[in-house]
Amino acid sequence: MIVEIVSVGTEILLGNIVNTNAAYLSEKCAELGLSCYYQTVVGDNEDRMSEVMENALSRSDVVICSGGLGPTEDDKTKEVACKAMGEQLVEDGITRGRIEEYMENYVKSNPGYIVTDNNWKQAMVPEHGLVLNNDNGTAPGLIIDKDQKIMILLPGPPIEMKPMFENQVFPYLHSKQPEIIYSTTLKICGSGESYVESAIRDLIDSQTNPTIATYAKTGEVHLRLTAKAETEEEAKELIKPMRQELEKRFGTYIYTEDEDETLEMAVVKLLKEKSMTLTTVESCTGGAISARIVNVSGASDVLMQGFVTYSNEAKHKLVGVSNETLMEFGAVSEETAREMAEGAVRTTGSDVALSVTGIAGPGGGTKEKPVGLVYIGCSCKGETKVKELHLTGNRTKIREQSVAQALTLLRECVMKI
Amino acid sequence: MIVEIVSVGTEILLGNIVNTNAAYLSEKCAELGLSCYYQTVVGDNEDRMSEVMENALSRSDVVICSGGLGPTEDDKTKEVACKAMGEQLVEDGITRGRIEEYMENYVKSNPGYIVTDNNWKQAMVPEHGLVLNNDNGTAPGLIIDKDQKIMILLPGPPIEMKPMFENQVFPYLHSKQPEIIYSTTLKICGSGESYVESAIRDLIDSQTNPTIATYAKTGEVHLRLTAKAETEEEAKELIKPMRQELEKRFGTYIYTEDEDETLEMAVVKLLKEKSMTLTTVESCTGGAISARIVNVSGASDVLMQGFVTYSNEAKHKLVGVSNETLMEFGAVSEETAREMAEGAVRTTGSDVALSVTGIAGPGGGTKEKPVGLVYIGCSCKGETKVKELHLTGNRTKIREQSVAQALTLLRECVMKI
Repeated sequence: MIVEIVSVGTEILLGNIVNTNAAYLSEKCAELGLSCYYQTVVGDNEDRMSEVMENALSRSDVVICSGGLGPTEDDKTKEVACKAMGEQLVEDGITRGRIEEYMENYVKSNPGYIVTDNNWKQAMVPEHGLVLNNDNGTAPGLIIDKDQKIMILLPGPPIEMKPMFENQVFPYLHSKQPEIIYSTTLKICGSGESYVESAIRDLIDSQTNPTIATYAKTGEVHLRLTAKAETEEEAKELIKPMRQELEKRFGTYIYTEDEDETLEMAVVKLLKEKSMTLTTVESCTGGAISARIVNVSGASDVLMQGFVTYSNEAKHKLVGVSNETLMEFGAVSEETAREMAEGAVRTTGSDVALSVTGIAGPGGGTKEKPVGLVYIGCSCKGETKVKELHLTGNRTKIREQSVAQALTLLRECVMKI
Repeated sequence: MIVEIVSVGTEILLGNIVNTNAAYLSEKCAELGLSCYYQTVVGDNEDRMSEVMENALSRSDVVICSGGLGPTEDDKTKEVACKAMGEQLVEDGITRGRIEEYMENYVKSNPGYIVTDNNWKQAMVPEHGLVLNNDNGTAPGLIIDKDQKIMILLPGPPIEMKPMFENQVFPYLHSKQPEIIYSTTLKICGSGESYVESAIRDLIDSQTNPTIATYAKTGEVHLRLTAKAETEEEAKELIKPMRQELEKRFGTYIYTEDEDETLEMAVVKLLKEKSMTLTTVESCTGGAISARIVNVSGASDVLMQGFVTYSNEAKHKLVGVSNETLMEFGAVSEETAREMAEGAVRTTGSDVALSVTGIAGPGGGTKEKPVGLVYIGCSCKGETKVKELHLTGNRTKIREQSVAQALTLLRECVMKI
């Protein structure tokens, strides 16, 4: 089945918001094995919306619209879609009841708020339509399935649209399209994209089902394997040999095969498994490593403290980097990175310490020590490893890469224990 | 003039990438006073591209395409656009020379790379087209201006597309459209969106030229004033009275009127002006405040160090929060936030210290201290101010809001000095 995504909203056409809804819906349709050939964005204008919807219905089997279902005069998606599908709008008692309840609660917490008649517009639904509950707002979603065409209307705010799609639309479309697309992602740290690509060139060139695609992320490469089959189990079986081959080639560089697991989650899990505690000592990253660790709920089991030793004085006073080292080799040096990590272990009693010092730019670079020169250090059970990095890009990019590389180094050192 | 944005790329239709190019181009067109009525995305398929381009040319004056200009077989945007505009492709000597030079350098740093004939495809340009230099890649951009229609072809990678648009396409379109749109943004911290909106309801209701729009950001509200006029000076004059009115209403809550200035930049600037040094002491934000401060190039003048005191022990040992306070009031309390800030000033000798302690969730909440309870403290020249926050949302959202509110508190306290 061919699907078209139609996003309604003048704010998208003004460039005020990025159309993340279309990306989400397209990705979900790909998972369902639906072919998305077009995405269209149109403003809150009845004539143009009508033209876009008629065009979409003429060239696609399924049209998924988001936005324009709210209570205001501007919100016309439902009216235009019903006209295009030859449907009448009638009031739905259950929806009306849900809106009444929602408004009652709203007025309780917003005394003085006046409920206008506009709100009841949202209880009008297509005569032969399927109503989709909205657990996070007042506008219900709608499905009109008629004359071999399916029109799906969803609210615009992602917080309302996504759970509605996931819980109600996905199963509906899945029942119409027995073949599914199953994907799994292998996340690799510590190797650049060009290295990974050349290492799997033969697999890329000979791919059929499953397919393989590489995605470069900051300091990571993700490999996505996708198979088409009638059931998830069958798809998984198809993917298995390629996954095993990749595991053989990349070994422990694959830090997870779980779509939702981040590098910081993998690192926290590893430290927990080994019952080890961590201290961070950051200069140019300014706390971004500890902030990433704290992204993980339950990080308090492993991260006891972190230091942002931005000045030389702080490097000396807080973690005992010697003034001689700072004078002789400078704040951005292998020696300083080493002493930062070792000093942090000594002063805090942590099992591991991770340090970063570098020049993130745009200022501060010299010929000997250019912008992008970064040292990362990891001291772990009596052994310290320091890596010299030569990074490119702007300040943000250099700092983000430093964080990713430092987490990778930490993972490497802890895995050896 | 009516403009349509056409994005070419199967990866967008698969949901693998979010279409940020369309948002960028739409925003720029709005600045130029062009009306964007449609955005369309189509895959790398000649028939469908052709259909989309013909449709776009029939309903718009300007069609801006991005993507599909590369050297591979898949890249067909130029060929399809030329057919739609009735143009022949001819080789352009200058472009050929540029590509040769680029490839020569590329081979130098990638020995063994074989330059295939595909690359010369990029030197083919429309007979009556205008060639746009690409300083960041090999594919040139193109403008075909013919029979009252303008077709603009840009490369897909944002790093190539954006400077090309900014430096070459923007001036070109501006010359075709004498009326310009000028916008300025007032950034407000320390007030919620609903408060700001109600405080300017009268201005919103009576807006004509300039218009006023509010944008909610984490912990901030941005007000965008937009005027239409023949020159930038005239537009600025139109905006002036409304800007003065807003300055009267929001006073020092407006932290900048500079589009590119962030809250952390404003804070660093303020500390520099007052020659004050800062120390951060973070618990639930885990270093995210110091990392935001270090976003600012030159932050080393004000930020000496930061502490991530994630465990109770670290709060006691690093900044001297008393064990009695931790026992009696708990780690998430007004008293602990106060002692964190005051202790940091005492132990480091900084002029100001900023502290945060709270429950970011999803675990760790109780009835008395629910998820979202956060205390921020600022100790500044002998005076300490602590604020209790009740935040909502997931872990990330609560931490981001805490960071923004803490920077706002810091700004308030330092401004009083």
